[in-house]
Order: sequence, then C-alpha cells, then structure tokens
Amino acid sequence: MPEIYPLEWSNERLKILDQTKLPKEQAVIIASNYVDVLDSIKSMSIRGLSIISVAAGYALTLAAKSVSTNDVQKFLGYIENITNEILNTRPSMVSLSKVVDRIFGTLNSFSTVQEMKDFIQKEAEKIHTEDLATNYQIANFGENIISNGQTILTHGNTGALATSGYGTALGVIRKAYESGKNINVVVTETRPFLHGARLTTWELVQLGIPTNLIIDSAAGFMMANKKIDSIIVGAQRIAKNGDFANEIGTYSLSVIAQKNNIPFYVAAPTSIIDMESQNGNSFPIEERDKKEVINFNNSEIAPKAISVTNITTDITPYENISGFITESGIIYPPFNNTFSQVYK
Amino acid sequence: MPEIYPLEWSNERLKILDQTKLPKEQAVIIASNYVDVLDSIKSMSIRGLSIISVAAGYALTLAAKSVSTNDVQKFLGYIENITNEILNTRPSMVSLSKVVDRIFGTLNSFSTVQEMKDFIQKEAEKIHTEDLATNYQIANFGENIISNGQTILTHGNTGALATSGYGTALGVIRKAYESGKNINVVVTETRPFLHGARLTTWELVQLGIPTNLIIDSAAGFMMANKKIDSIIVGAQRIAKNGDFANEIGTYSLSVIAQKNNIPFYVAAPTSIIDMESQNGNSFPIEERDKKEVINFNNSEIAPKAISVTNITTDITPYENISGFITESGIIYPPFNNTFSQVYK
Repeated sequence: MPEIYPLEWSNERLKILDQTKLPKEQAVIIASNYVDVLDSIKSMSIRGLSIISVAAGYALTLAAKSVSTNDVQKFLGYIENITNEILNTRPSMVSLSKVVDRIFGTLNSFSTVQEMKDFIQKEAEKIHTEDLATNYQIANFGENIISNGQTILTHGNTGALATSGYGTALGVIRKAYESGKNINVVVTETRPFLHGARLTTWELVQLGIPTNLIIDSAAGFMMANKKIDSIIVGAQRIAKNGDFANEIGTYSLSVIAQKNNIPFYVAAPTSIIDMESQNGNSFPIEERDKKEVINFNNSEIAPKAISVTNITTDITPYENISGFITESGIIYPPFNNTFSQVYK
Repeated sequence: MPEIYPLEWSNERLKILDQTKLPKEQAVIIASNYVDVLDSIKSMSIRGLSIISVAAGYALTLAAKSVSTNDVQKFLGYIENITNEILNTRPSMVSLSKVVDRIFGTLNSFSTVQEMKDFIQKEAEKIHTEDLATNYQIANFGENIISNGQTILTHGNTGALATSGYGTALGVIRKAYESGKNINVVVTETRPFLHGARLTTWELVQLGIPTNLIIDSAAGFMMANKKIDSIIVGAQRIAKNGDFANEIGTYSLSVIAQKNNIPFYVAAPTSIIDMESQNGNSFPIEERDKKEVINFNNSEIAPKAISVTNITTDITPYENISGFITESGIIYPPFNNTFSQVYK
C-alpha cells in the first residue's frame, strides 16, 4: 500500500504536504526556518492534533539552529519566546503545550547551548517516531472490532494526514482492510473544513479502500436504514469520565448511533486523556471566524450581513461511547478506573 | 415588512425569481411559454413543494394559450403530453401530480377548447391564491407554539421562496416575530443545496429577523447546550401514521431533539398527507447525481474517483414529532385519527 506522510524531515528542512491544496494538487512546502512551519500550522496547510505537535518540535529545532549565541540564558530566553509563538498558532490544541512542556521543560538540565540544540532535535525526531508507533499500536488493537463485510462510518480526517502516518480512527479502518477484511467506508464531508470530503476520501482512494462520501446530514438516515455497522472517530481531548472533544458533528453522530444500537468507538492516543478534567463541561469550545462558513471555496454562500455561530468542536458524553481504542488496548466502560491505570 | 414572491403572473407571462442566483443576485426569468417554466423547475431556479406546483399550473396555462386548434380531442392530447413533461421535471414531487390531476382531470367536463383554456388559467390562479391563504392559516395557528424570548431552529427553506409567499415553517416563525415576540432563529446551512445558507438567511435578512447560520453538524451540540427552544421544519409528504419525508437531515435533528426534550414541529398543508401510505416505509427516497455533492461552484471538493451516496430526502418517524401545524390547526399525537378528519 502506498504510504502517505504529511511531514518529512531531511537535510535540516521540513517538507510539508500542503493540505489546503488537496485533493486537487499535491504541493509541498519546504520550511527552512521556524516561521515557515508556524505559518503552515496557522494556515492549516498542516492540521491534526498529532502532526501539528510533531511540526512544533521541528519548528523549535529550526529556531534553535538559527541562534548563534553560546550564552545559555540568552538562548533559553529566545526559545521561550518561540514556544509562546507556537502556542498561539492554534490556541485550543492541548497537544502543542504538551510538546512545548516536554522539550522546553527539560532544557535546564543541560549546561551548554550545543547540548540543548542537540537535545531539541533528537527529541523532535523522537516525538515523530513515537507518534507513528502509537498509531500502529492503535490500529492493531482496533482492527479487532471490525468484522468481515462491515461498513464503517468515520467523520473528519484522522488518517495519515492528521498524524505522523497511518492515522488513528482511519488507521484502525486501514488495518482491518490490510488484514484482508472485506469492508466499506462511509465518510462524512465534515463541514466546514471538508476534512472528510477533501482529505479522508483522498487517502482512501490512494489506499484503494471502497468508500462512499455522504453529506454530514445523511449519516443519521443511513444509520436508521442499517447501512452502517459501526462508527469510529478520533478525539482532541478526553476527560477523566470519558467525555471527549472532537470535530463538530461528533456529538450528533453519537446520539443517533445510540438510538439505532450502532457501536460508537473513539480511536486516540492516551496522551490526550486529561485527568485534571472530571468531565467535558470545562473543555474549551473552539469558535472560529464566520468567513469559514460563509465562504465556501472562495465564493460566498450566504448574505454577508448574516450572523454565524461557527463552533468547530463539540463534546460527546461518555454514555454514548462503546469504547476507546488506544495504544494500550481497547478501554470499555466504566472508563474512570482504566484511564487511571493507562495514563501514567 | 417587505413581501417576497418567487412567482408573479402578469400580462400572460410568468416572472420567476431565479433562486439559483440568490443571495448574490436577484435575477428574474420572464417565462413566456411553458418550456421556460419547466426549464426553471428542472434547474431549480424555482424549487419548493408548493411553488413548483403553482408554477406547473401556469405552465399549463401558457401551453394552452399557444394552441390554435378548436378540436377538443387534439387539444386534450396536446395538454396530456405537457402534463407528462411536467411530471418528469421533479419525479419525486407528489405536489406536481396533484396539480396535474386537479386541472387535467377536470377538463373533460367542458365542451369547447376556449372553455378549457379559461378553466386552466382560472384554476392556476386559484391554486396560487389558495396556497398563499393556506400559508397564512398555518402561520396563524403555528405562532402560538412560539413564546417570547425563544430561539427556534429551522432546516432547509420553507419560506416565501418555497411557496406562493410567506411560507410554512418559516411563515410560522415570521408570524411570531410580526406579532411582536422577541425571537431568534437558527438556520442550518442544509447541504447539499445550501437552501438554508443561501435562501432562508436571505429571507430573514430581508425581514430583519435576528438569525444565526450554523453548519448542519452544529445543530446537535447547540441543542445539548440548551441554545435551541424548539425546532420547526417543513415536509414533503406525510403518511397516515405521521411518518414524514423531508429534506435530508430532518431525521437526525428529530432524534437529537427528542434526546434533549426539545419540541419538534412540522408545518405543512394537509394536502400533502398521503392517506394511502400507512407509514413512511414505502415513501420514495430521492437519490441524485454525485456531482451535486462533489462539485461546489464549478470546483471539485473531493477526488473525482470517489463514490457518493447523495440521498436528498429522509423519513422521520411519527414518534419523534410533537405536532403538525396545518391550515386546519395543530394536530397532536396520535396523528392517525385527526388526519382522517382533516383530510377530505
């Protein structure tokens, strides 16, 4: 099967597949400094919880390399400023602060600038490799929930493009197919960014997996008509009780799945379990610019004067979830206890 | 308040507001023969259950006027051919066959071509006037379910543009506003045709009613967060038990509304109650060209190679419905008995 990689680090440069151009064009951005990388995150040329945190690691690497001082305090001050710039690219993304903490939080254990520079690059590469390994583990555990002949619905893009490769929810589906199971995939277009229509379908066409695209509003009626055997989605943040945040529309799918007795799984790394949040009530809800709804492919689809509520994440309550597929195995309800064990 | 009319019959011509150009442009098609009218129905320049049946009446009027024969049999043969052309413009629309039956089915009670021509035009104008009157009655009954300070969600376009003026579900909302109630409207964009984003918001801006546009997938989470007090939608066909067909996405909204204890009303004329259908299982489901999902504004949003399931109607079961708002009053469950009384 063809491999799809949204990022490639080589010769001290970061090659970024420009996802805003897909599926029409496979354009590559060559980022040779940290500003190029952050611009790509802001413009959503690269998007997805896992892979933007990998990109953030390389942004720090490129920034560190560009500094000529040997003064440790000056170096740390410079890097700290960059970490703030990174956190501001996508403020709601908890994965960015985890990477910043992991790298910047360890720098003071080194005594020279060169050691710090070496550590930053090694750690960035390690984050990249670890993420890919985590995806393979999620896929290996998850494929067991898919039986031969089933049709699986997914929402958003959780494939190779959203991660270091292979994917989370889409990785599970891919693994089932690669294991020889005869499956069909139904992909919602996932407004407003069309991550399903533009990116997930593109990945599935590359991989040769039988796929049907539907509008988001058609998912319910397909469930009611027994055209869907199970649903697998990704997650952006998971609370201690199992409530989770994800791309807008996930909550609706979970309610209709429950009504129609369709299993509803979430595939995600344990790193996004937030044990500080007892439930999802306190999760930040991303609300973005109205232009993202009104301007569809550079054309206005609604009167300029109209107000828009452009919520781009929602919260799904734990009661609607059949299980979490993680790199440590599948976690079934009640989630509280198992989360405490797997999350170290 | 400004009046919006999708059709105007004057000087033996039909002026059609081209809804495919809205909201950017208010272009008018001047139809001076029946072919122009049927082309406008096919291209969806005019759409909506009620108003395309009104347009069909005027198409028959224009066709009849163009015939020079005085031979009754020749005239009837010609008109019969036109009725077949009309039925083929939008095969799933039950309202077209009702108009054809009403006009063509009565012609044999006249003995001259001139009498038939006069009858066709009078009946077309009567259908137009009756539809407008029905809408006002629906609005008058329906506004009682809306309280001051409420936020009402609607899906698709059921306003003046979909009818002879005023509207069904949107007419109810408008009436509540005109009665001095302080209300807010939430409109789903309603993929794939964007009837909510393009048409309903345009009407609401004209009328000055406070409105928020959302993507279809955001409706569920807004309900879960108590941002919606009630839902009012239109219908395309209603079965004897209360199951009804409507624009895709209606079923999903009804399930999530029920889960969140939000009243869910359907506003529609009693003429679309289909007493021959015991339930919605036998209703035809419209599935249209994949291009309508993939092509947006002449630009592709998904890989060409992808399969698409483009279902454009769904069926909502009677259990999910709080009531039907009709020109004969609001009908509450159980629907069976009352339908038998109001449907003559």
